[in-house]
Parts: sequence; structure tokens; C-alpha cells
Amino acid sequence: MKAVCLLSGGLDSATCLAYARKIGYECYALSFDYGQRHQIELEAARRLAEVLGAAAHRVARIDLRVFGHSALTSDIDVPKNRDEGQMNADIPITYVPARNTIFLSFALAWAEVLEASDIFIGVNALDYSGYPDCRPEFIEAFEKMANLATRVGVDGVTRVKIHTPLISLSKADIVQFGRKLDVPFQLTWSCYDPDAAGMPCGACDSCLLRAKGFREAGIADPALS
Amino acid sequence: MKAVCLLSGGLDSATCLAYARKIGYECYALSFDYGQRHQIELEAARRLAEVLGAAAHRVARIDLRVFGHSALTSDIDVPKNRDEGQMNADIPITYVPARNTIFLSFALAWAEVLEASDIFIGVNALDYSGYPDCRPEFIEAFEKMANLATRVGVDGVTRVKIHTPLISLSKADIVQFGRKLDVPFQLTWSCYDPDAAGMPCGACDSCLLRAKGFREAGIADPALS
Repeated sequence: MKAVCLLSGGLDSATCLAYARKIGYECYALSFDYGQRHQIELEAARRLAEVLGAAAHRVARIDLRVFGHSALTSDIDVPKNRDEGQMNADIPITYVPARNTIFLSFALAWAEVLEASDIFIGVNALDYSGYPDCRPEFIEAFEKMANLATRVGVDGVTRVKIHTPLISLSKADIVQFGRKLDVPFQLTWSCYDPDAAGMPCGACDSCLLRAKGFREAGIADPALS
Repeated sequence: MKAVCLLSGGLDSATCLAYARKIGYECYALSFDYGQRHQIELEAARRLAEVLGAAAHRVARIDLRVFGHSALTSDIDVPKNRDEGQMNADIPITYVPARNTIFLSFALAWAEVLEASDIFIGVNALDYSGYPDCRPEFIEAFEKMANLATRVGVDGVTRVKIHTPLISLSKADIVQFGRKLDVPFQLTWSCYDPDAAGMPCGACDSCLLRAKGFREAGIADPALS
């Protein structure tokens, strides 16, 4: 059975893809070149798709810079060393407007072309850095909409299903889950703002959440060794 | 009050933009370069945005060709001279998978950046050439999802509203409505498959629906004279 799997190159999406493979899906991995600050995560996505046995991997180019306004796609500085209280308190500047909506829309388009009705996304509502489009109620609403948007939904038989196997896991749970699935953690990339040598900054929200996850799982992060 | 208005360069989206202007919105027009077969409609969109007094016009480049599978973005022939029965019977090959979902997702992203909560789209459920993502139930579901996807929806005060002023109008009604709003019809472009000289083919679904609309409205199409 075919599924479209969103793959950023990070820990969560890699674990999500590994899970979809494990339960028997033929996976079509989808990444985005959306004008992010660096290309390291796309390279990570390419290697992960190969190692995890995706049937195909596509990188869709989309221009989110046209609207500006996020530290991940413009020249605003990425905030560093925020504590958990700050991460949970508000939507950070690294939030890309409507990003998951856009990513899922493209996944839906590809699913329709493939005649697949399953989409996997590694969103996580617990250690999620405060983005509104990572919440379960958003995913449910997207799924409902998707079933009205497409041929698949219109035939009255198949139903589009958005799978979110990580949604209720903590970052530590994801690390444990990923280890069970033999996810090659050393190939995953999380940092928003690598240094000139291409090493993780260790201080952006994404680096901090990753470090916390490995620490609480009691596992050393092989990407840092 | 700010609104994002999807603008393809066709008759419907031009009328929709003219209406949004008429009722007092400051309009941010959004078009897409999605690998369509020709660039004429983008040029039409640029001129319409200017003439109709949009506050800004952006063209977002998105790569829908990455998934193939539509006559509007690939090398499949555009069907010609189909009758109404054929148009209404099934979803045609000119349907671009999940296109309105993707377009509305981008509109939502820009709305969020602008802190606008209104989006206008010129979809039409009556003379709509059989696309599932032109139906009112799709639009309602998208609106619900949008209110869970974004900062705007999260603040609990503002609500994203998707306006579809043309949704229950026939093509003839739209022509009449557009004339009342002084839409410069001669600047609008509908054809999917222009000839080498840049003239409308007169035989694709879009040309046929346009011709029917003007004919039934009893108005000559100035784009053909």
C-alpha cells in the first residue's frame, strides 16, 4: 500500500518514515526546498529516504520567502537558549506561516496522483515549540477538508487518512521509538542555524529539544559524536 | 481592512477581486506560477491587479510539475469541444491535484503575515467543470481547518473567513455581476491552450464555459473582438 511521507530530514520525520515502512507501507518521501536558511536538512532527507527504503523521494520547490516574516526563511535572527517556559508561552518567530498546511496540501496532491490515501507526518503536540499547526485538532480538520478536496474523497469509498504516529509522544519517547525502529540518528538533522562549518548551533529551540530528548531517553546523540 | 485575493487572471477571479474592492477591502492579490502551459494568464493577472487597484500583487512560484498528471501542467493534450454532459460527468484531466487546497494554503500564509483574516476566492460550484475543490463543502472545511492552523485562529478573537462571492452564480450571472462592477473583461484570460499567436483556442472547457456565459448574459466578449 502506498503512502506519502513528509520528510524534513529531522529526527521526527525520519522516525515517522521508519514507522510507516515498518508497518508495511510503500513510502513516497516528500521534502520541500522552501528557501530555508540552509540546505543541510535537504541533504539529510535525501540520505534518509535512501537508507530507510523509500520507493521514491521528491523535493518540491516552493517559494515561502515571497511572504517573508519567519526566522527560518528570512534574515531575522533565530532565537537562542530559550527555556521551556518561553517555548511554550508563545508562537516563536521560527514559525513559518501555514507551513504544515502547505506541506500537507502538497502531500495530498502527490497522494492523489499516486492514488494513495495515506499520508504520514511526524508532528508532535507535546515538545512542539508552540506551533499551532502541530496540534491534533488541526490534523483532524485537515483530514476532513482533504476528503472533500480530492478525487479520492469524492469517490465515496476511499478516505484520506493523515497518520501522526508521534503526535502524543515526548521527544524522549520519539528517541526511544526511533531506536527500536533502527532509525539512523546520525543522518538526521535538527538545527535551525548551523555554524559556518556546518555543525549544529546547540542553542536554537530545535537543538535544545533534541538534546533534551536524547538526555531524557538516556541515549547519546550519535550526530554529535 | 486587508484581504488576500486569489487572482488567476481569469474572468471569475477578476470579478471576485473587483467585488472585494467594491465592498471596501484593501486587496493583496496572489497569483501562482505553477508550471502552467503558458504565461499569458499571469500577465493578465498583473494587469488586472493594477487596473482593479490591488494594494499589492505577488506571484508565488510553486512546483506542481513535480507530481505531473494534469493536462494543465504536463504534456497531456487539453480535451476539446466537450459538451456539458461530459463536463459534469467526471473530473477532467485538466484538474490539477489539490490545486485549490494548495492555493488557499498560500493565501492563508500571506494572510497570516499581513494579519488579515479575509481571503477571497472566485470558485464557482455551478459552471465549474467538475473539480471537487470548487464545492461549498470543501470551502467550509478549509475555513474550519484554517482557524486551527494559524496564529489568527489561535488568538480566539479573529476568525479566518474564506469569501466565495461567486460560488452559487452561473457563468452568465458572473458576466452580469462583473459588468456591474466594471471589470475590464478584455484584460481577463480564460483559455487553457492558446494557439501559437497567443489567441484563445475556443474549444477547451474554459473557453466553452466563458463563451456560454457571455452568450447567456447577452453580452459580447470584448476579449474576442
